[in-house]
Amino acid sequence: MAYHYVAPLADMRFVLEHVLAAPASWARCAAFAELDIDTAAAVLGEAGRFAGEVLQPLNAAGDREGCRIDAEGQVRTPEGFAAAYQAFVDAGWPALPCDAAWGGQGLPLALDAALREMLSACNHGWSMYPDLLHGAYETVKAHGSEALKDRYLREIATGRTLAAMALTEPQAGSDLGALRTKAEPQPDGSLRISGSKIFISGADHDLTHDVVHLVLCRLPDSPAGSKGLSLALVPKWLPQGERNAWVVDSLEHKMGIHGSATCALRYEGATGWLVGEPHRGLAAMFLMMNSARLHVGLQGLGHQEMATQNALRQVFERRQFKMPLAHMPAMRHLVLRLQAKTEAQRVIAYRAALAIDEMHHHEDEAVRRRAGGLAALLTPVVKAFCTHHGFHGAAAAQQAFGGYGYTREVGIEQTVRDARIAMVYEGTNEIQAIDLLQRKVLADGGGALEDWLVECEAEATCAEAAAAPFVPSATRAPHAAPAWPEGAEFAAALRAQIGRAREATASVAAAARNDADAPLRVADDYLFGVGHLLLAWAFTASARAAAGQADQPFAAAKLERMRYGLRHVLPQAEVHWRRVLDVHLSLPALRAP
Amino acid sequence: MAYHYVAPLADMRFVLEHVLAAPASWARCAAFAELDIDTAAAVLGEAGRFAGEVLQPLNAAGDREGCRIDAEGQVRTPEGFAAAYQAFVDAGWPALPCDAAWGGQGLPLALDAALREMLSACNHGWSMYPDLLHGAYETVKAHGSEALKDRYLREIATGRTLAAMALTEPQAGSDLGALRTKAEPQPDGSLRISGSKIFISGADHDLTHDVVHLVLCRLPDSPAGSKGLSLALVPKWLPQGERNAWVVDSLEHKMGIHGSATCALRYEGATGWLVGEPHRGLAAMFLMMNSARLHVGLQGLGHQEMATQNALRQVFERRQFKMPLAHMPAMRHLVLRLQAKTEAQRVIAYRAALAIDEMHHHEDEAVRRRAGGLAALLTPVVKAFCTHHGFHGAAAAQQAFGGYGYTREVGIEQTVRDARIAMVYEGTNEIQAIDLLQRKVLADGGGALEDWLVECEAEATCAEAAAAPFVPSATRAPHAAPAWPEGAEFAAALRAQIGRAREATASVAAAARNDADAPLRVADDYLFGVGHLLLAWAFTASARAAAGQADQPFAAAKLERMRYGLRHVLPQAEVHWRRVLDVHLSLPALRAP
Repeated sequence: MAYHYVAPLADMRFVLEHVLAAPASWARCAAFAELDIDTAAAVLGEAGRFAGEVLQPLNAAGDREGCRIDAEGQVRTPEGFAAAYQAFVDAGWPALPCDAAWGGQGLPLALDAALREMLSACNHGWSMYPDLLHGAYETVKAHGSEALKDRYLREIATGRTLAAMALTEPQAGSDLGALRTKAEPQPDGSLRISGSKIFISGADHDLTHDVVHLVLCRLPDSPAGSKGLSLALVPKWLPQGERNAWVVDSLEHKMGIHGSATCALRYEGATGWLVGEPHRGLAAMFLMMNSARLHVGLQGLGHQEMATQNALRQVFERRQFKMPLAHMPAMRHLVLRLQAKTEAQRVIAYRAALAIDEMHHHEDEAVRRRAGGLAALLTPVVKAFCTHHGFHGAAAAQQAFGGYGYTREVGIEQTVRDARIAMVYEGTNEIQAIDLLQRKVLADGGGALEDWLVECEAEATCAEAAAAPFVPSATRAPHAAPAWPEGAEFAAALRAQIGRAREATASVAAAARNDADAPLRVADDYLFGVGHLLLAWAFTASARAAAGQADQPFAAAKLERMRYGLRHVLPQAEVHWRRVLDVHLSLPALRAP
Repeated sequence: MAYHYVAPLADMRFVLEHVLAAPASWARCAAFAELDIDTAAAVLGEAGRFAGEVLQPLNAAGDREGCRIDAEGQVRTPEGFAAAYQAFVDAGWPALPCDAAWGGQGLPLALDAALREMLSACNHGWSMYPDLLHGAYETVKAHGSEALKDRYLREIATGRTLAAMALTEPQAGSDLGALRTKAEPQPDGSLRISGSKIFISGADHDLTHDVVHLVLCRLPDSPAGSKGLSLALVPKWLPQGERNAWVVDSLEHKMGIHGSATCALRYEGATGWLVGEPHRGLAAMFLMMNSARLHVGLQGLGHQEMATQNALRQVFERRQFKMPLAHMPAMRHLVLRLQAKTEAQRVIAYRAALAIDEMHHHEDEAVRRRAGGLAALLTPVVKAFCTHHGFHGAAAAQQAFGGYGYTREVGIEQTVRDARIAMVYEGTNEIQAIDLLQRKVLADGGGALEDWLVECEAEATCAEAAAAPFVPSATRAPHAAPAWPEGAEFAAALRAQIGRAREATASVAAAARNDADAPLRVADDYLFGVGHLLLAWAFTASARAAAGQADQPFAAAKLERMRYGLRHVLPQAEVHWRRVLDVHLSLPALRAP
């Protein structure tokens, strides 16, 4: 049976409905008050059908064909990509989380997250094109002039015009302060943009007529460094119908995502318009970047789901030593590990999306504030942790296919190649770790983290309560066995992680006082520690939800996998926390080659 | 500066001379009694020049061009491969470890190991062609008839004829008992071979005129399963000059090693000759397989070296935030981790090769016996552990290159793709883990392991002695500070690993008595535990050797990296040992999709 995709709709619904109780949250957000879980599930069902039936069949062919620049200098995407995109627009998918006022459907980001997961699982290369739509929409909506909004916002919200984010330049990778692209103000209020950008996904293509770039650039009077960057919107076609003055010089030949056009381009006095305040481009761009970071994390989740479900089918199909591979302990570990991690990361990633929804829409101001802190805290973890496991999970799943998994005939090697980039772009995973520890935890005084740890403690308390239900002592009647005895085991493991997170944070904060490098030395391990804390929370919350309906096969299986995760996956946490607690251990300088 | 290779000659010499004291071992092997370390180093210097100057420049082009079948059905390798191979033969490299009686140079496998490491680092695809020569040589030498030896052994030893190993069939991957290829005895004593094989590396190519296949097949009266397999030598050209009756049907399109022709082929009544006893083919084949497994481990080591040294150069060349990446703590961890692991694995892999040399050539029978046990014990660990880190180390190194590392212009993505196969072929890493725990440890009663642990304890004792040199108490004189105070830290960490290895082994052995699946459940973690024990030993032995000459820059740097490894890499061991000790933890059956 070929490598293919079956949307994990039952699990998505279980996570939204029973683990995260999203409907209860929607009920308290005016924007989503009419949404119920059946409608949400129906939307996801349609999305799954689009991803599986339209996108997935284009995945391998897109990888083989790749993109090219035609004789007119126009970027051409693989066969079928443009038609699939038209179907995507026609069905209204780009507009899912956008405001109805701008042509959107006004649905929660938590549903959009599930959509993004499915798109990337089925065709990461294709999914890159609409990936920045929502970020561009948010950025233009929040920072664009009325004229810009009138001209572009509806186009972007509905996906009739696609968007690209133009940051990186040859001399500046992660270091945005070193960017040089110039923007000269013109008498008519427009900007004249000149400079080179590289690694721009979807800067040009044949999916839509127009394309808008959000370009980080410098005004003539700008301060040095990242505080002097401005943001400009630069379209492909000018309002009068002329082609704007930028050209795609070349496309990158890459390890994977061949279907995505990664462009090196030159702005040669191109016309653009300022988005937001002068020199405040980075702040405006970060709206787009944060949305992109969540999406990248969802790509990692999608890769894991694709790899996991195919590995599972493979071990049941393939027989060796007169039995299915599925009987072999090594394969059972392999698949259970993938399943437990993937399902728990789904809970974590959707929780981040739900926090963004609550931050914007919840009726209670205190909830909005806490949700904002949680969204900021979770975004770098979802980005780095899910993409790390996206690549490593896919590479692990490849092992189930033996030698076949190394051939292009089976799709798993493409998933591995595609997944690798997600650890690098939109801020390398190392940058995410620094963002988490320095900005989201230490600079915040640990407030958002502590809010979250309290929420985790509440989960532990619920699990303990489920383990030993309260029986009024006055009755003294014999009572039934506790509903879910092993809730205590889950709660204990979760509390241990909460404790470690507090200890580790305190230890880094103390060390940072007279050793500014200390957080940088342990940031990667800190992020992985927090990732494991989140796994512990997700295992517990999922298991508790499943325990309540353990007579149903889906829930019984869920419980088994979460238990596996708690016992076999979670112990890895200690290595990371230990390294953070050993923050004073020396880290020698590298010796030059 | 481009992705390139500088042979790590200083480290290779340091490992052979100071860590493993190979010259002292050679002095007690009649075959190598004349060899000194300067000669050995000179040989490696030449090998490094060949690998870096001849093979490495063909690596990226070979990846892009790949192999093809021409109109005559002949496999064609990428441009330059055949000429490079001719130069390889002319310089006598294939014959390095073969007996002078058959045209070889009679040098130790420990030197051949370093040669293999360099070949795979520079051009894994190309290195596949001569990879099976030594195994084929050993197999034919030990099991071939005099007639076969006369006709083929000198050809193989000198590399004028290349060899391939034909095991896998479409219906049988790891399960050799399911093989079906038929061998019918002919009146002239030859065999008539019919059947299909897949995934045969170098079954055909244009590097040498003739190619010999060692084919696992079944005689008509054979028992079922793996005990009924025989081994046949099947050439491309018959002695009378006709083309033998086998054809290459297709070449696999693979994730990597595009320069290596991975053939699906059909034997259509091809002529061959029995090698070894009827139905004893697997035993004969295992000679070849064990040699191949060590080579595959050395590929993993080569990939790590290539990735590590290029990551190091990259972080010194690339500047971000106004300083070289090399200053950033995350990059320091990344490179130091790679360096510590790579250098320690070099010690481990060369130790395995040295054990094979001693097993064949040492003057002392007791040493030969222990060395044989050690070689058997280390082979699966070197294969699985070094290839795991070969792939994961290369993928980690890729992170140092940012977005560039994902493009084909930089070579690191090819190293990642190439490295992935080594975890699969010559027995998947899961098969190696079972081989280690079931056959090499439990079936052996732990004898070879215990011999090795005693050797590790001797190393710990030496490190302790170096930490607190003995001062006769009678003198009561004030004495200098201990030569190497931190020897105690290394010794303690090594002793902790030895203790864990004993505990874990005892615990699995006990569990296996009434639970046959127990070893299978923990085999992977057991292998990784043993891998970390070996790292602890290699860190300690290397650091102790370096401490003796710490006034020299090379040794001072070595000491720093081994200390990093001990403190930052080794803690991962505990996760693996813990899982082995938890051997009774349940492992649920997988639920069918």
